[in-house]
Amino acid sequence: MARFETRHGALETPCLLPVVNPRLITIPPRELKEMGFQALITNSYIIRNDPVLKERALREGLHSLLGFDGVIMTDSGTFQSHMYGEVEVDNEDIVAFQRDAGTDIGTVLDIFTEPEWGRERTAEAVRVTLERTEQAAAIKGEMMLAGVVQGSVHRDLRLECARSLSSLPVDVFPIGGVVPLMEGYRFADLVEVIVASKMGLTPERPVHLFGAGHPMIFSLAVLLGCDMFDSASYAKFARDGRMMFPEGTFHLKDMKGLDCDCPACRQHTIESLQQLPEQERTRALALHNLHVSQREIDRAKRALLEGSLWELVEQRCRAHPALLDALRALARHKKFLERYEPLSREGAFFYTGPESLDRPSAFRYEKRYFERYSKPPQQLGVVFPDAERPYSRVYAKEMREISQRADAHFLVISPFGPVPMELDEAYPIAQSVFPRSRDRDTEERTRELMERFSHGHEYGVAMLYEDEGTLEMIAALGGGRNTFDLDLARVKAVADYQFGKGAGALLLDGKVDLVKSKNTDKIRNVLVDGEHVLSMRAPDGFFSLRPPGARRLMQGFPSPKLRVMVDEDSEPFNREGKNVFCQFVKDCDPEVVPMDEVIVVNEKDDMLAIGRALMIREEMLAFKKGLAVRVREGVKA
Amino acid sequence: MARFETRHGALETPCLLPVVNPRLITIPPRELKEMGFQALITNSYIIRNDPVLKERALREGLHSLLGFDGVIMTDSGTFQSHMYGEVEVDNEDIVAFQRDAGTDIGTVLDIFTEPEWGRERTAEAVRVTLERTEQAAAIKGEMMLAGVVQGSVHRDLRLECARSLSSLPVDVFPIGGVVPLMEGYRFADLVEVIVASKMGLTPERPVHLFGAGHPMIFSLAVLLGCDMFDSASYAKFARDGRMMFPEGTFHLKDMKGLDCDCPACRQHTIESLQQLPEQERTRALALHNLHVSQREIDRAKRALLEGSLWELVEQRCRAHPALLDALRALARHKKFLERYEPLSREGAFFYTGPESLDRPSAFRYEKRYFERYSKPPQQLGVVFPDAERPYSRVYAKEMREISQRADAHFLVISPFGPVPMELDEAYPIAQSVFPRSRDRDTEERTRELMERFSHGHEYGVAMLYEDEGTLEMIAALGGGRNTFDLDLARVKAVADYQFGKGAGALLLDGKVDLVKSKNTDKIRNVLVDGEHVLSMRAPDGFFSLRPPGARRLMQGFPSPKLRVMVDEDSEPFNREGKNVFCQFVKDCDPEVVPMDEVIVVNEKDDMLAIGRALMIREEMLAFKKGLAVRVREGVKA
Repeated sequence: MARFETRHGALETPCLLPVVNPRLITIPPRELKEMGFQALITNSYIIRNDPVLKERALREGLHSLLGFDGVIMTDSGTFQSHMYGEVEVDNEDIVAFQRDAGTDIGTVLDIFTEPEWGRERTAEAVRVTLERTEQAAAIKGEMMLAGVVQGSVHRDLRLECARSLSSLPVDVFPIGGVVPLMEGYRFADLVEVIVASKMGLTPERPVHLFGAGHPMIFSLAVLLGCDMFDSASYAKFARDGRMMFPEGTFHLKDMKGLDCDCPACRQHTIESLQQLPEQERTRALALHNLHVSQREIDRAKRALLEGSLWELVEQRCRAHPALLDALRALARHKKFLERYEPLSREGAFFYTGPESLDRPSAFRYEKRYFERYSKPPQQLGVVFPDAERPYSRVYAKEMREISQRADAHFLVISPFGPVPMELDEAYPIAQSVFPRSRDRDTEERTRELMERFSHGHEYGVAMLYEDEGTLEMIAALGGGRNTFDLDLARVKAVADYQFGKGAGALLLDGKVDLVKSKNTDKIRNVLVDGEHVLSMRAPDGFFSLRPPGARRLMQGFPSPKLRVMVDEDSEPFNREGKNVFCQFVKDCDPEVVPMDEVIVVNEKDDMLAIGRALMIREEMLAFKKGLAVRVREGVKA
Repeated sequence: MARFETRHGALETPCLLPVVNPRLITIPPRELKEMGFQALITNSYIIRNDPVLKERALREGLHSLLGFDGVIMTDSGTFQSHMYGEVEVDNEDIVAFQRDAGTDIGTVLDIFTEPEWGRERTAEAVRVTLERTEQAAAIKGEMMLAGVVQGSVHRDLRLECARSLSSLPVDVFPIGGVVPLMEGYRFADLVEVIVASKMGLTPERPVHLFGAGHPMIFSLAVLLGCDMFDSASYAKFARDGRMMFPEGTFHLKDMKGLDCDCPACRQHTIESLQQLPEQERTRALALHNLHVSQREIDRAKRALLEGSLWELVEQRCRAHPALLDALRALARHKKFLERYEPLSREGAFFYTGPESLDRPSAFRYEKRYFERYSKPPQQLGVVFPDAERPYSRVYAKEMREISQRADAHFLVISPFGPVPMELDEAYPIAQSVFPRSRDRDTEERTRELMERFSHGHEYGVAMLYEDEGTLEMIAALGGGRNTFDLDLARVKAVADYQFGKGAGALLLDGKVDLVKSKNTDKIRNVLVDGEHVLSMRAPDGFFSLRPPGARRLMQGFPSPKLRVMVDEDSEPFNREGKNVFCQFVKDCDPEVVPMDEVIVVNEKDDMLAIGRALMIREEMLAFKKGLAVRVREGVKA
């Protein structure tokens, strides 16, 4: 979700740009505007090759030619070279023509790298593409420039091309050469191409997935960080009698019903739609295809905001086996995706299949558990093997009572990994919903994680199945010693998990008082030596930091850990409790993830404020504007 | 998909009946009619307890009272007894009241069997419910009667109750007592209850899932054979600010966007919807909930007709982990579901996860392969382990060529089980699409099937991985003997698979000529001793039977195998090539599945016609009207 300013207004992303063929207009641009499309794409090469259109474009400008006062992006003829082998224009000419015709975003004449090309040929095409991008940048004038990432299916070449483009003055990054992958339902390859490109691109400029116009893949592409899409398919499919849906393409002639509420379908039955004269039918289907695409973008945007985009993608990827391949391909990129994964999400973690456990939030739990968690010193450790329910809420209360009576420590085996009772309220553990039925992949994963756990454990591991006698037995074994303070252990474990190993010790050094909710008996505030250092958030089980807590962490963790460093212009505002904007950020802890608690500091490492990071370091440093930290509390000098 | 006649017109099923509370009308019945609802449900108990409403209902009738000229069904107060413990009415009174108020479909005052009830209490409640149903049937007059299946979660009691109800003169079978299961997201238990009830119910009368009003579960319930649904939830959820979607329930206040095109949402943004005054908001959300529900019924209906309902259900069941449990619960009922599974479906078989292999079509392949297939006598058997692709089309052509040059027989290991080359064009093998990526459940299933295969095999099994040299090597091994006729083997294997073991030998006894397509080189017609016995259908790879072929099968397979026996009234029409209607069917092969080729015979076992069965034996015998066999060819006397 971002805004992107052009001469003809702002584009809110993610967004779809319908392709308008200036010689074969299926839906007039004015109507597209009325439908809510803020931008369209047209082909400068086609216009330039048509003497009448060319003359008009240069005289009155593209916006007048098309009758569209929104954002106009133009393609350069590259797709025609893919279709027909070559084009009769050179890069300088077509870029100058786009500029002179008043396009808002013009495109370099890049080389379309075909999926079947070998490394060498592709590398040469990337070299030429970059050369032409530099050339275009030099002559683009006021026009914004789209510099295309090429590299075929060679991940290293995509990465290299993306890195080089990031240092050039281009405004939009289309990922090109992907249409044959989409046409061939090679969605797993598409994932590889997008990820490799994204890894090399600087994050502040929008990424456009060139030629992606099918609602089947929008949610997946948005998940991978694509901001812009364009579609000629809406019209092509319509001419061919095909209707697009997020669940795939259906031939109108084969359809046995109509369950679509879009403006084009609303007045129709399936029979009346099938019986329309060809031209009217094409128009109706084109409108349908556009509308459904637009709605699916809206759907993905909503899921993004509501924290349920992974769930949406996993549902959508059941529409075709090739999409399931794409979903499974995401598992290879957990580490990359985890960098952008917020500390917690608003929605619950819904398990939709074994693929759900490859989400970055599950990967993070596993990583942080093994890196940051340390077991309390209790002697008696009890492990519940429970693959069904990551944390059995039925037993949670009893376990707590008995852990105190018996000096015991409980741990549940879950598909996320081992879950000690101190972490059972933190995201995604308490927020997850699993089916009761099992599958082999999830069982195997659980087994592997427990094996990894048992290598380093200090327990005389008792693998006990839940039954009524078990808990009483443990209580008896413990013999009434009462040294285990679960609340204190929870504060320590969550602090270590959230802020880094050792954070708990730093925060709790002194006389600790816990303020608990009267209704839920859950920890709300943590006071140490009379100072309020932390507050616990009920929804995600993590802490909000208070300045006294931040001070303790700063003493133990040298800069840049947990810090966002701002310049002196920002300092007085942040001390007043105002938010931090990107342009004032000088540096940031590279381990900060979105929604992390951060300490805003000046260059002398004085604390200015406490707040929540909304982005990661690379983004803070790259973005020229936008909110970097939502400040909760300023700290006076 | 069926039609169901009432005094106020026909109901097309599956359909949804909105619940109208006569004392708290959220959407006026007239408006429901305009929205396309053919029927509604209201509560006779509430009306009867309100002196004014009661008097009006008896004087002018329910249709006038509610201002609704469609089908009115009434509930009896049973749900109130679930809610409030008891009701102050007896069965006779409330049934008589419903009758006298002119309801189209009245309901017995059944006992709501709660999920937590034990066997004994439930059995007693079932006994009382059946007694009351008999009593109601005696006094119902012209009113149609809904006799409710109860039995809590006790499958045997559900089955028993359903069986008893089937012999009573009731017109609709609601499955009752399921609301607590749905409210508790116990969807796997719901599956058990529906299947147990369906197993006991006679198939010609519609089944109503009482209180099921959430679009999340419609496709699943339709798959299991539920015809009618009702919803009070649309209004209850709306009053509570909740919006229903097939992917779940969302609280309006938490929603961060609106991507719905229904008439209620069309004019709104999320903000404008959130800011509506309470009453208007409730109305808008109620309309939304109804509309979305109606569309989801349409969607399920379309998928049913297009042969893709399993795919739809598997997608929908990813919306919540409890739905995934329900999907997985279906695996326990393969055998029951296979009875209703057509020979082939129009759509492709899309794999959406390991659950797809528990579909009845996969179960049937496995069963028939092991029961009906016999290996050709070739010495050299080659097995390709290929869990990814059940049949590698890349290799299919080469395998065929080499099998002829080398006298070899090929077999591919697939998740469906072993696929010999002779069955590689038959449904669901050739029509299936799998992902390239694997999962443990599918691999394990494939392994188990191969193990079962290798116990009985006659091969010196050569497990060969695909590579370029392999095929040449085999060709060399074969030494140029050319005795394997794939075409002939295919006719035999498909005939055995489709019609039963031995069918191939019966059909091919004589001089065989195959007519092949010039374009595709595929078999089209099979002639034996100059007679055209079979035609092969390209889409599903099965045969259409011709009378000479039917005659051969009849000689080898005694009645009732492959037969549909009709009475003498039907005979002259069927001999003319007219279709067979249920009311004339005397008997049918109990193994016939929908879309099977069948031979229409008279009671003397004379062949009258050839055609396709549209239903199974139980349905043909139970239905009072409807098409039983679509006749393709009549046979003159």
